[in-house]
Amino acid sequence: MDVTLGGFQTSELTTAQVEALESYLAPLADSVRALVDATIRSTLDEKGTRLAKARIDEATALLRGSQLPGPAGVHVNAEGRSWHWGNAAAGLRNALAPPMLLEFDQAGRVSSELDLGAAYEGPPGHLHGGVAALVLDHLMGVTASAGKVPAVTGTLTLRYRRATALGRIRVEGWVDRYEGYKTYVVGRIADSDGVTVEAEGVFVRPRWARDPSIPSSPTPSHLEEP
Amino acid sequence: MDVTLGGFQTSELTTAQVEALESYLAPLADSVRALVDATIRSTLDEKGTRLAKARIDEATALLRGSQLPGPAGVHVNAEGRSWHWGNAAAGLRNALAPPMLLEFDQAGRVSSELDLGAAYEGPPGHLHGGVAALVLDHLMGVTASAGKVPAVTGTLTLRYRRATALGRIRVEGWVDRYEGYKTYVVGRIADSDGVTVEAEGVFVRPRWARDPSIPSSPTPSHLEEP
Repeated sequence: MDVTLGGFQTSELTTAQVEALESYLAPLADSVRALVDATIRSTLDEKGTRLAKARIDEATALLRGSQLPGPAGVHVNAEGRSWHWGNAAAGLRNALAPPMLLEFDQAGRVSSELDLGAAYEGPPGHLHGGVAALVLDHLMGVTASAGKVPAVTGTLTLRYRRATALGRIRVEGWVDRYEGYKTYVVGRIADSDGVTVEAEGVFVRPRWARDPSIPSSPTPSHLEEP
Repeated sequence: MDVTLGGFQTSELTTAQVEALESYLAPLADSVRALVDATIRSTLDEKGTRLAKARIDEATALLRGSQLPGPAGVHVNAEGRSWHWGNAAAGLRNALAPPMLLEFDQAGRVSSELDLGAAYEGPPGHLHGGVAALVLDHLMGVTASAGKVPAVTGTLTLRYRRATALGRIRVEGWVDRYEGYKTYVVGRIADSDGVTVEAEGVFVRPRWARDPSIPSSPTPSHLEEP
């Protein structure tokens, strides 16, 4: 199903149009990220809380006036520019995602520096172990596919050496070896005092990406045209 | 550091007061959850998007008028009622958290049914593998501690059998065995077509919970009174 977004048909977006959309969609999601943090940390009384809630509900009603019928999905245009704005770890439009900006060095190492605050808490003052898993899974999956071939997680093993302090963290990953459709990736998280979590993952090329006759970005069945 | 919340000192909250606060704080976070979804799926143009963003920024400014100095932390009152409103997987006030409501059966099995939409997407139309890890890590950690003894993740191994469809999922876990300070927990996720992810975890009682002279809910150092 094709949709109109900011006056453009999503299937026909040029890279310049994708970037024009991102110029106002990214600040919207950044505002929601700030709101998520402020919501957790608010000490307003009931009356003040209800005033804030009314503003939020007004914003939601405005946005609900024109919506995609389902999740955002993954898109690639004719220029090879891809965008996955809804991704739970890296999506530009997803306020749950930090989002992760990934850097690729010449040796094939992928890294990301993140500032994770109150919304990512598990043990008091520390990163939730499951959020550590989320950011590692995501970065290691990208490492496996190296931006070219899609890869989904087969197995992921995480060793938590100690609690990760909230604040600035560094996530990194690199390919250990390839075996057929499997890519073995190593990853780790460090806070300002050093490595806190180590991970190993086996990533698998999905069946639809092994057969060149299948489009690289399939529409999920519930979003297909009837 | 003690703070005033809705007119109460958090260190002195009775269970009835905790529940009175939750009665208006939970709907606030639910509104933010709806906003997160609407933000990802909006197809409004730039003008409409900026109107919605202005409402969101007004809400954030209201909430920023009175805030905790840092993350929410974990609290327990004299009646033994605990609350961790900011938790990334289960926090009542954290819009990133689905949140997870856990059920405990008589055999010690812990389960949770969740409706996960556009904000939890990884592969198109499917659950992000890292979100699967987040909900499993959380549920299995609670399973390990059985609501009594704190436990943090030591190692977690996830096997992704196939992609999990977005929508209603079921997460469950149970203790396989105990060995000293370690608890071995098994968990899995199922969508409407069956099991999609299997997990094994080793959870470890933190040092501060092995020594009864240390309070069970320590204040993180950056929130301690000077």
